[in-house]
Amino acid sequence: MASRALAVIVLAAGMGTRMKSTLPKVMHPLAGRPMIRHLMDTVHSLSPDRVVVVVGPDMDSVGAAVAPVPTVVQTQRLGTGHAVAQARAALGEFDGDVIVLYGDTPLITAETLQRLLAERRGPRDPAVVVLGFKPDKASQYGRLVVGAEGLKAIVEYRDATREQRENPLCNSGVMALDGRRMWSLIDRIDPTTNSKGEYYLTDAVALARADGCCCCFVEGEQIELLGVNSRSEQAVAEAVIQRKLRDAAMEGGATLINPESVWFSWDTKIGQDVVIWPHVVFGPGVTIGNRVEIRGFCHFEGCTVADGATLGPYARLRPGAQIGVSAHIGNFVEIKAATVEAGAKVNHLTYIGDARIGAGANVGAGTITCNYDGFSKSFTDIGAGAFIGSNSALVAPVKIGDGAIVGAGSVITREVAPGALAVARGLQADMPGWADNFRDQQRGKKG
Amino acid sequence: MASRALAVIVLAAGMGTRMKSTLPKVMHPLAGRPMIRHLMDTVHSLSPDRVVVVVGPDMDSVGAAVAPVPTVVQTQRLGTGHAVAQARAALGEFDGDVIVLYGDTPLITAETLQRLLAERRGPRDPAVVVLGFKPDKASQYGRLVVGAEGLKAIVEYRDATREQRENPLCNSGVMALDGRRMWSLIDRIDPTTNSKGEYYLTDAVALARADGCCCCFVEGEQIELLGVNSRSEQAVAEAVIQRKLRDAAMEGGATLINPESVWFSWDTKIGQDVVIWPHVVFGPGVTIGNRVEIRGFCHFEGCTVADGATLGPYARLRPGAQIGVSAHIGNFVEIKAATVEAGAKVNHLTYIGDARIGAGANVGAGTITCNYDGFSKSFTDIGAGAFIGSNSALVAPVKIGDGAIVGAGSVITREVAPGALAVARGLQADMPGWADNFRDQQRGKKG
Amino acid sequence: MASRALAVIVLAAGMGTRMKSTLPKVMHPLAGRPMIRHLMDTVHSLSPDRVVVVVGPDMDSVGAAVAPVPTVVQTQRLGTGHAVAQARAALGEFDGDVIVLYGDTPLITAETLQRLLAERRGPRDPAVVVLGFKPDKASQYGRLVVGAEGLKAIVEYRDATREQRENPLCNSGVMALDGRRMWSLIDRIDPTTNSKGEYYLTDAVALARADGCCCCFVEGEQIELLGVNSRSEQAVAEAVIQRKLRDAAMEGGATLINPESVWFSWDTKIGQDVVIWPHVVFGPGVTIGNRVEIRGFCHFEGCTVADGATLGPYARLRPGAQIGVSAHIGNFVEIKAATVEAGAKVNHLTYIGDARIGAGANVGAGTITCNYDGFSKSFTDIGAGAFIGSNSALVAPVKIGDGAIVGAGSVITREVAPGALAVARGLQADMPGWADNFRDQQRGKKG
Repeated sequence: MASRALAVIVLAAGMGTRMKSTLPKVMHPLAGRPMIRHLMDTVHSLSPDRVVVVVGPDMDSVGAAVAPVPTVVQTQRLGTGHAVAQARAALGEFDGDVIVLYGDTPLITAETLQRLLAERRGPRDPAVVVLGFKPDKASQYGRLVVGAEGLKAIVEYRDATREQRENPLCNSGVMALDGRRMWSLIDRIDPTTNSKGEYYLTDAVALARADGCCCCFVEGEQIELLGVNSRSEQAVAEAVIQRKLRDAAMEGGATLINPESVWFSWDTKIGQDVVIWPHVVFGPGVTIGNRVEIRGFCHFEGCTVADGATLGPYARLRPGAQIGVSAHIGNFVEIKAATVEAGAKVNHLTYIGDARIGAGANVGAGTITCNYDGFSKSFTDIGAGAFIGSNSALVAPVKIGDGAIVGAGSVITREVAPGALAVARGLQADMPGWADNFRDQQRGKKG
Repeated sequence: MASRALAVIVLAAGMGTRMKSTLPKVMHPLAGRPMIRHLMDTVHSLSPDRVVVVVGPDMDSVGAAVAPVPTVVQTQRLGTGHAVAQARAALGEFDGDVIVLYGDTPLITAETLQRLLAERRGPRDPAVVVLGFKPDKASQYGRLVVGAEGLKAIVEYRDATREQRENPLCNSGVMALDGRRMWSLIDRIDPTTNSKGEYYLTDAVALARADGCCCCFVEGEQIELLGVNSRSEQAVAEAVIQRKLRDAAMEGGATLINPESVWFSWDTKIGQDVVIWPHVVFGPGVTIGNRVEIRGFCHFEGCTVADGATLGPYARLRPGAQIGVSAHIGNFVEIKAATVEAGAKVNHLTYIGDARIGAGANVGAGTITCNYDGFSKSFTDIGAGAFIGSNSALVAPVKIGDGAIVGAGSVITREVAPGALAVARGLQADMPGWADNFRDQQRGKKG
Repeated sequence: MASRALAVIVLAAGMGTRMKSTLPKVMHPLAGRPMIRHLMDTVHSLSPDRVVVVVGPDMDSVGAAVAPVPTVVQTQRLGTGHAVAQARAALGEFDGDVIVLYGDTPLITAETLQRLLAERRGPRDPAVVVLGFKPDKASQYGRLVVGAEGLKAIVEYRDATREQRENPLCNSGVMALDGRRMWSLIDRIDPTTNSKGEYYLTDAVALARADGCCCCFVEGEQIELLGVNSRSEQAVAEAVIQRKLRDAAMEGGATLINPESVWFSWDTKIGQDVVIWPHVVFGPGVTIGNRVEIRGFCHFEGCTVADGATLGPYARLRPGAQIGVSAHIGNFVEIKAATVEAGAKVNHLTYIGDARIGAGANVGAGTITCNYDGFSKSFTDIGAGAFIGSNSALVAPVKIGDGAIVGAGSVITREVAPGALAVARGLQADMPGWADNFRDQQRGKKG
C-alpha cells in the first residue's frame, strides 16, 4: 500500500430523534462508554494524520468525548455532503486519502477500513471507494450498481428499478475518497436532484464517474455496519460488543458459567482460571487477577482484585476497592476506596469505606465503618490479624491495632491498641415476664 | 361495519392438568397478573355488550379475577360446544354477534378480533367466522378446508386426508357467530360423531353449511394464538409479553442495556432517558419518572420514583415506597411504605419501613427503622437535612427533627429536637493485651 | 439383545490446552460438578462389568472424581489407539463388548449407547460399531464411508475426496468393539500411516475389514456429541444441560417466569407449584418443597426448604440451612447451618449462622448472630414465638427463651428467660443545638 497521508471525517451531528433523549445520540454508551469513543478507538488504530468530528449545535459533550480531536459544528442539517463540507476548514488542503465515517455506526472494524483504504490506494486509483454490505433485510437501503469497470452508481431505494432492488449489495454510506479530488466533488453536489433537497454524499460517485474517474467498492459485514438510531438498535449493538467481550474472556481462560448473564465494560481485565457465576456486572475500570472466583450477583466498578480472591455472591466493589491475594469478600458487602489486604475476610452485610483492612484480619457480619459525618470522609485503619466482632460500628477516624479484638456490637470511637480488646456496648437488663405481659396486653387490645 | 350488539363467551373451564398445579390454569400469571386478566382487557377493548366466562367447578378465584363479568360453571367437561351451551342462560336471547375465546389463549390481539368481527359483519353475512393460523409445526391441528365460497369445513387432524394435511391453515378454535343462528347450531352438535364423544364447537361450521349458510375464516398470527397448557408454554407466552414490554420501554426512550435481563410487570411505567442496567425486576404497580438511573439487581414493586433519582444496585423498593426527585437509594437498601423526599440519600445496608425521610437528609450505612413490635407498626419521621449516623436503630414511633444529628451506632428511642445531637451507645472499655492472651489460650487448647 | 459382558473405556488424558487452565479439562464443571462425573453417571446406567478411565500424568483429581473406578495413566500422548491400549492391563482378558468414550464429550446419552451396543450385539456381529453424527458444520470432521455391507472406512477430512466430503455423516470417535477381536486390532494400528504419527483408534475399522469382519455405524445427535475443548464449548454444554434441567422443573409443575435466568445444579430438587422469579442460582445440594415462592436474586446451596415457604428477593441460603413450613426468609438475609422452624420470619438484612429459630419467631431487621470468635463457632438458640428487636446482636453461645423479647438495638450476651424482655443498649443523651453549631463550624471552615 502506497504511503499516503490519511484523514478521517466522522459525522456525528445527527439529533437521534428516535432515541427520545436529551443526550446526543453518539454519547449513548455501549459497554460503559459513549459509542463515539468506540469508533474513535478504531479511527486512532489507523494512525490517521488528521481527524475531524462534525457535531451538531449544543453538543459540547461530544467535543469533550473526542478531545483532543477537533470538532466542527454543522449548524444546519442539510445532508451528508453538507456535513462533510463543514470539515473543510478544519481539514485544510489535504492531498492524502479521506475516510468518511458515522458516529452512530460504531462497530465498524479497523480491518474493514484497512481494506477500504487498500482499494483506494490500489492500482485503479479510484476517486471514491464505497463500503457496501448485504443486509438480511435490504428493503430500504440504497443499492450499489456495479459493472466490470467498478462501481457505476449508487441508487436510492425509492429510485431503484425492480432489477436494481434485487441486487443485495447495499450502500453503507462509509467511503474513502481521494483528497485531491474530494472538495471538487463535494462542491458540485446538487441538493435539487432529490426529493428531500439534501446534499447527498453518495452523489460523489456519479460526479466522479462524470469526471472520468474510476469508483470502486469493498464489502463489509452487516454486523459492523449496524446503525444505532433507537434504543432497540443500541441494545443490539451492545449485545454484539458483549458477545465479543465474553468470547475474549473465555478465550483467555475464564469460565463463564452462563455467558449471557455476565455484562462487561469495554475495559474489563479478567485473568486466567477465573470462574464467573451467572449474573455479574462489571462497570468500568475493573481488573481481576488469576484464579479468582466470582459468585453470582456481584457488581464491580473501578477496582482491582488480586489472585486467588473469592468474591460474592452479592459483593459490591466500588471505585478504589483493592482486594488482596486470597481475600474473601462475601454476601451483601460493599467496599469503597479501601484496601483489603491478603487473606482478610469481610464476609457478611458490611460496609467498608475509606479504610485499610490488614492482612488476615476478620471483619464480622454487620460491621460498618462510619466514614462520613455529613461534611468530610475519615479513615479507618484495621491492623493485620485484627478481629472485628459482628455488628460493630467503627467511627472514623479510628485505628484498630494489629491483632486487636473488638467485641460484638461495639461502637468504637477511639484507637484500640495492638493486641487489646475493646468493648463498647450497653449493659444487658432483663425483665422477667415482661414479654408475656406485653403480649397479653396487646391481645387484650385487639380482643 | 354495521353496528350490531356484541357478546363474548370466554371458555376457561379447563383443568390444565399438564400445569400440575392446584391453581386453575387461567389464573397462572403472565407479566404479574393472571393470564385471564390479559384476555379480559382485550375483550373489554372491544366494548362488548355482554360477556360471560365459563369456568369449571371450584374456580372461585377465576370468578373473582374477571368480576364483575358473570361466570357460569360447566360441571361436566363434555367439549367446547357443551361449554358454550352453558353460557346460554347468562347470555339470554341475543341477536347480535358472539365471539368465542379461550382463557388459555391470552395473547390474542384486539386487532385480530376486530378483523374477525368485520368479516362476520361483512357482505357475505356468514353464520360462522373461524380464526385460522399457520403454525410452524402444524402436525396435530385441525385444518380449515377452504373453497371459493369460503370455509367449507373443519377437519380434525386424525380424520384429515393426506392432501388436507398438507394445507398449512389450521383451526385456532376462536370464532365469531351470528347470534341469531348460534343456539340452533349449538343445539344440533352431535357428540356421537367423534371418537371422544365430545360436543365439538367446530361442528357448527358443517351444520351452518348444511343450513345453506356461508362460513368464512380470517387468519391470525401463530404467536397470538399460543395456547398455554404447560409451564413451558407459560414461559413462552411470558417471553412474548416481556418482549413487547421491553420494546415499548425502549421505544419510549429508556435504555435497556441488556433487555433480556429486565423483567417488567404488565403495568410498569417508565419515563424518558431512564437507564436500566442488567438484572432488574419490576413487580406490579411501579412508576418511574424521567432521567432515573436504575443499576443492576434492583427489585421494585408498588412504588413511585420521581425524576432524576438514582437507584441501586441492589435497591429493594416495596409497596408504598415513594422516592423523591434526585434522591439516592443505594446498595442493599429496602424501603417499604415510606417517603424519601427530594435529594435524600439512603445508600447502604438500610431498612426503612413506615417512615418519612425529609428532603436532603442523609441516612448512614446500616441504619434500621425499628417499626414493628410484634403487634403493630409505628412511624419514624426524619426531618429535612437530618443526618443519621451509621449503624443506628431508630425505635418507632420516633421523630428526628430537621437538621438533627444522630451519632453513629445509636439506639434512638425518643424524639430528637431540630438541630440537636443525640447519641445513645455504650461506653468504650479497653483491655490491653486481652486479645493477645485470648489467642495464646485458644492456640494452647488446640496445640 | 444377547447377554454379554460389557466394559467401558473412558479416555480422559487430554490436557485441554485451549481451556488455559491448571485444572484437567474433564474436571471443569457443568451444572455444578466435573464434566467427567456426568459421563460416569451415564456409563454406570449401562451397568457395565468393568470400567477403566485413562488419564494423563498428574491428574489425581480425575482419579478421585471417578473413584472407585480404576484409572490408568497414559504417560505419552500418542493418539486414541495408544490411549485405549493403556487400559489393556486393567481390563485384562475380556471377551465381552467394549465401548470407548471420551471424557470431554459428556453429554452423550445412555439411549444412544444402548443403540450402539444393540448394533454390536445384532445379527451382523460387527467387530466395530462407530457412532456417527451429522453436524451443522461438518468441515473438519472425518467422514464415515458407508456401503451396502455397512461401514467401509473412516477417512480423515484432509484425506477425503471432494465426494466423500459431501457426505454429512461424520465420525464422533465413539465406538463399540468386540472384545474378542479388539486387542488384535489395536495391536496392529500403525502410526506411520498418518502425518501426525499417532495411533488412530479409527484405523480399527480398516483393520477389521481387512480381517473380513463386518463394521457398522449408528447415528447420534450432534448435541450429545459436543466436545468440550474450550471455555466457549463448556458454556455451550452448560446451556444444553441447563435447558434440560429447566424443562424438567417446569414439567414437574414449577413456574419459571424467565427460565433462561435460572441456573440449576445437576441435583436440584424442585417441588410442585413452586414459583421461581427471574435471576435465581441453585448451587449443589438444594431441595425445595411444594408451593414455595422464590423471588428474584436468590442464591442457594446445600439447603432444604419445606412447603409453603417464601424466599427472597436476595435470600442467601448456605449449607446447612433448613427452612421450615411457611417460613419467610427475606431481603439481604444470609442463613448458614441453621434451622428456621415453621412460620418463623427472618425478613431483612440479617445474618443467621449456627442457630435455631423457633417456630413462629420473628427476627427483626439487621439482626446478627455473632457465632464466631476467631477460633470456634458457637450456637444461638431462639425459642418459639420469640421476638428479636431490630439491629440486635446475639453473642453466641446464647439462648433466647420461648416467647422472649429482645429490645431493638441490643447486644445480648447471656440467656434470656422464656417470656422475659432483655434490653442491652446505651442510654440516649441529647445535646440541644449541637448539630446546628457543628454545621455552622463546618461551613465556616469551608467558607
